[in-house]
Amino acid sequence: MAEVKLLGQFPNPYVYRVIWALKSKGVQYEFVEEDITNKSPLLLKYNPVHKKIPVLVHGGKPVCESMIIVQYIDEVWPQNPLLPSDPHEKSVARFWVKFAEDESPSIYKILQNTGEAMEQGIKETLEMLQAIEDHGLGDKKFFGGDQIGIADLAFGSVIYGLVVVQEAVGIKLLEAHKFPRLLDWHKNFMQVPVIKETLPDWDETVASLRAGREALLKAAASQ
Amino acid sequence: MAEVKLLGQFPNPYVYRVIWALKSKGVQYEFVEEDITNKSPLLLKYNPVHKKIPVLVHGGKPVCESMIIVQYIDEVWPQNPLLPSDPHEKSVARFWVKFAEDESPSIYKILQNTGEAMEQGIKETLEMLQAIEDHGLGDKKFFGGDQIGIADLAFGSVIYGLVVVQEAVGIKLLEAHKFPRLLDWHKNFMQVPVIKETLPDWDETVASLRAGREALLKAAASQ
Repeated sequence: MAEVKLLGQFPNPYVYRVIWALKSKGVQYEFVEEDITNKSPLLLKYNPVHKKIPVLVHGGKPVCESMIIVQYIDEVWPQNPLLPSDPHEKSVARFWVKFAEDESPSIYKILQNTGEAMEQGIKETLEMLQAIEDHGLGDKKFFGGDQIGIADLAFGSVIYGLVVVQEAVGIKLLEAHKFPRLLDWHKNFMQVPVIKETLPDWDETVASLRAGREALLKAAASQ
Repeated sequence: MAEVKLLGQFPNPYVYRVIWALKSKGVQYEFVEEDITNKSPLLLKYNPVHKKIPVLVHGGKPVCESMIIVQYIDEVWPQNPLLPSDPHEKSVARFWVKFAEDESPSIYKILQNTGEAMEQGIKETLEMLQAIEDHGLGDKKFFGGDQIGIADLAFGSVIYGLVVVQEAVGIKLLEAHKFPRLLDWHKNFMQVPVIKETLPDWDETVASLRAGREALLKAAASQ
């Protein structure tokens, strides 16, 4: 079997999507810890366009972008499928993956700003949550139906990130009376063994985000 | 055969991606012209999250987002494949599709602004073109090799849009001495019969973008 390496860093939420996909398939891999403040020659070689983690290296060939890596994993290791086989259901799953990719940067706006820019991030994040609540889940347990699928991995990382950001910043957007379906989904998602067993340490993650926020705001204030 | 409808509007570049995919497969379809200033109940029903064109309706079921529609078409009508069958090659094609989706909004910044915001759009667009030139094509005729594939359709729409914006705004970014591979690719792409035969009328497209830009700038100036 060709060697599988994952270039990543804890507790990066995009890296977790790939870890969850590999674990749900039972694929053995080597985790290569990257320092994104001092990128390795390997990372620059394998992802020359974005120079970002995660990168999956399989048999010496790189695959970049977390959700493209998840699709690659699903094609190479077909057990426990993450994408439906029906083309229409597949297009719906891909729609929500793209939605997660396009809309979730609003959470960074909350984390990295104060004042008006932070308020804008909160507004956009609430709109994202409302769209998922109204159109994403219906009466299903997971986006993928009874089992987690690719859209669950996409939003799993987004919503975990949001929960940590809420704690780091001291706000609460994910309220049960506003987003009952989404919160049920999140509870179910966090109980899936493969997810539960691989989450980063909560306190460390909150501390890391808080430190990142403080450093950014300090740098912005001194400009 | 289930009925195929395409909800779109001329000369929207995202709609062209879908038209090219359908034509390259030889799929018959009905084009339903939408007025995006007065969205139809059908569009609101079929794309309730974004309320945007294009939407493909196949056998009564909607598929949204141009590049997701192209993948759907490729799965339902497998003749003249638009995606490679090898999972690694597929991940590379998907990487460039995502790159086109993420980076091409810089062209709208040029079209819709003047001054610093327009300069920022030009800077980002040049960075996008440079990345394609340096990493996207290599010595291949098309992103997909000898035949056009999904990444060609993604960039075909982006670069056609840029060429029209250059004309509408009066700038020139796509210069042969800076981007020789990209311009060769564009020339080859425009000669593919399915593309050549379906491009919107040049003068009409330029006039439409120019009018859109003027209206936007006038609205911004009167605020």
